[in-house]
Amino acid sequence: MKTLEEIQALLARAVEQVELEREPQGLYAPVRYTLSLGGKRVRPALVLLACNLFADDVTPAVAPALGLEIFHNFTLLHDDIMDKADVRRGHPTVHRKWDEKTAILSGDAMQMVACRYMCQAPAHDLPRVLDAFTRMALEICEGQQYDMEFERRTEVTAEEYLEMIRLKTAVLLATALRIGAWIGGAGDGDADRLYDFGINLGLAFQLKDDLLDVYGDERTFGKKIGGDISCNKKTYLLIQARRLATGDDAAELARWLATDVPSHGKIEAVTALYDRLGVRRICEDKMEQYYRQAVASLDNVSVSDDKKQELRKLAGKLMLRNE
Amino acid sequence: MKTLEEIQALLARAVEQVELEREPQGLYAPVRYTLSLGGKRVRPALVLLACNLFADDVTPAVAPALGLEIFHNFTLLHDDIMDKADVRRGHPTVHRKWDEKTAILSGDAMQMVACRYMCQAPAHDLPRVLDAFTRMALEICEGQQYDMEFERRTEVTAEEYLEMIRLKTAVLLATALRIGAWIGGAGDGDADRLYDFGINLGLAFQLKDDLLDVYGDERTFGKKIGGDISCNKKTYLLIQARRLATGDDAAELARWLATDVPSHGKIEAVTALYDRLGVRRICEDKMEQYYRQAVASLDNVSVSDDKKQELRKLAGKLMLRNE
Repeated sequence: MKTLEEIQALLARAVEQVELEREPQGLYAPVRYTLSLGGKRVRPALVLLACNLFADDVTPAVAPALGLEIFHNFTLLHDDIMDKADVRRGHPTVHRKWDEKTAILSGDAMQMVACRYMCQAPAHDLPRVLDAFTRMALEICEGQQYDMEFERRTEVTAEEYLEMIRLKTAVLLATALRIGAWIGGAGDGDADRLYDFGINLGLAFQLKDDLLDVYGDERTFGKKIGGDISCNKKTYLLIQARRLATGDDAAELARWLATDVPSHGKIEAVTALYDRLGVRRICEDKMEQYYRQAVASLDNVSVSDDKKQELRKLAGKLMLRNE
Repeated sequence: MKTLEEIQALLARAVEQVELEREPQGLYAPVRYTLSLGGKRVRPALVLLACNLFADDVTPAVAPALGLEIFHNFTLLHDDIMDKADVRRGHPTVHRKWDEKTAILSGDAMQMVACRYMCQAPAHDLPRVLDAFTRMALEICEGQQYDMEFERRTEVTAEEYLEMIRLKTAVLLATALRIGAWIGGAGDGDADRLYDFGINLGLAFQLKDDLLDVYGDERTFGKKIGGDISCNKKTYLLIQARRLATGDDAAELARWLATDVPSHGKIEAVTALYDRLGVRRICEDKMEQYYRQAVASLDNVSVSDDKKQELRKLAGKLMLRNE
């Protein structure tokens, strides 16, 4: 069995060797730039780890794994335009480094490069791999659409939020696992269980993200604490707080939410409200529920426990991280 | 053999039956809107006409034909954002009717819907159909990139212009024909000949476009005469005029090109310059050269002449049109 570290090293080399046309520079340089921004390459790692549960040779899964990583980075490129973000991983976003037209077009090209890599899946797997990939791609668009719509709404329920997260971020993790499993030779049952593992892991991961933003350690978090609070981001914590706050708490929360720009004392005050309302525990409980469901799905995959160690390790790292 | 009219009727019904998800409305409504804007559905017609050269039953080619039409409309959607166009076929563009974020995201979804339709190609054709489709998609991005770069440059050669047109518009026509041929059972030689027919037809078609803008009949053209001249669009006519103008003509042309907003007398003056320099004839000769090459490629396709009638008819219509 390959370790997570071996797989990440393999993927780092593979990403460097991604072949892109040279001309026109203006089209492909932003694609290269985006891929070079790094990242932990979690999604392609999930493809290879899932494949490795069922097959010693993960080589047939490398191209589709790269395809999913390229696709993921394409979504970040276009999301940054839509969110008007200036910085990604400490570097200027593509529309800032180049311009918006370039970012739109290079993103479009990147989505097709991703497709070309998916198309290198083994021929007998191709129809279902492409079906899963394109379906996932549409679900991610749906999630992003809901995310954008929620920004404009005052009331968003916890169910709506979790569904948006499922579509926007979890289905990619889940599809990565399912595709890797198929290529490794898994039966449908195991592939489905790995998909469910991915969905639950993705939901737990986002809830962890919501918690870290408020309760993380700024020295390790990598981002300023309370960024979500400052801009009124509708996280699970905020949604639960709005649901539970009554009387003076509700009035105070509404006052802080009246503006979405940083203001003195807002982060401390809203965090204190969260503490009073107990939403940290509600969020942690929900996160642990999804994590347990993820672990249960993985437990039911019909390969020996020792083979599942690297996936368990990766899931644990995602859950126990401080940044 | 099906007639062009039968094929266009079949396609009109097929486009209406394109199944899209309902939710979220905000994502899929712009996709439906874009497809509903109409058009002559030339590209999917080419798929079915090419298929019909080799097979009586064109049904297996319908889904890929729709995929190419959906893809074409996706490129228009994103191009309109990049060009900041307000109107498409007499209707507001998607970013005007909704907003830019929606236009980017719905376009992304539309590109994936197109992929899903391409993936319905017959299984034995799937690898090469997808290879051709994704390669074409990247070439179209490359052509659009060159088009955007040329706007910012003063000097563009005729060769550069024609290569940009080949990528931006001709390869889609060519790929439509090639894919249709493959699905119909054509050998590689005939499929390649049909591809060449499409490339040459596409180049001739764009040169016709350039001519119509200046020399068309405004009553039938559907657009104001001289729009390209007003905004200094680097058409084949302008490129040849810049190459050939000397002395006073060169000075006069440079004066008119100093501004890209409509100005009194510009269209008449530049048209007169074109007449003096003989660029209309140069453009018509080039167009006819490509058209002859197209016809020659089609002649070499190894099916009987009577089967090629509808394709010849369509090519002729594209060349003899007044709008």
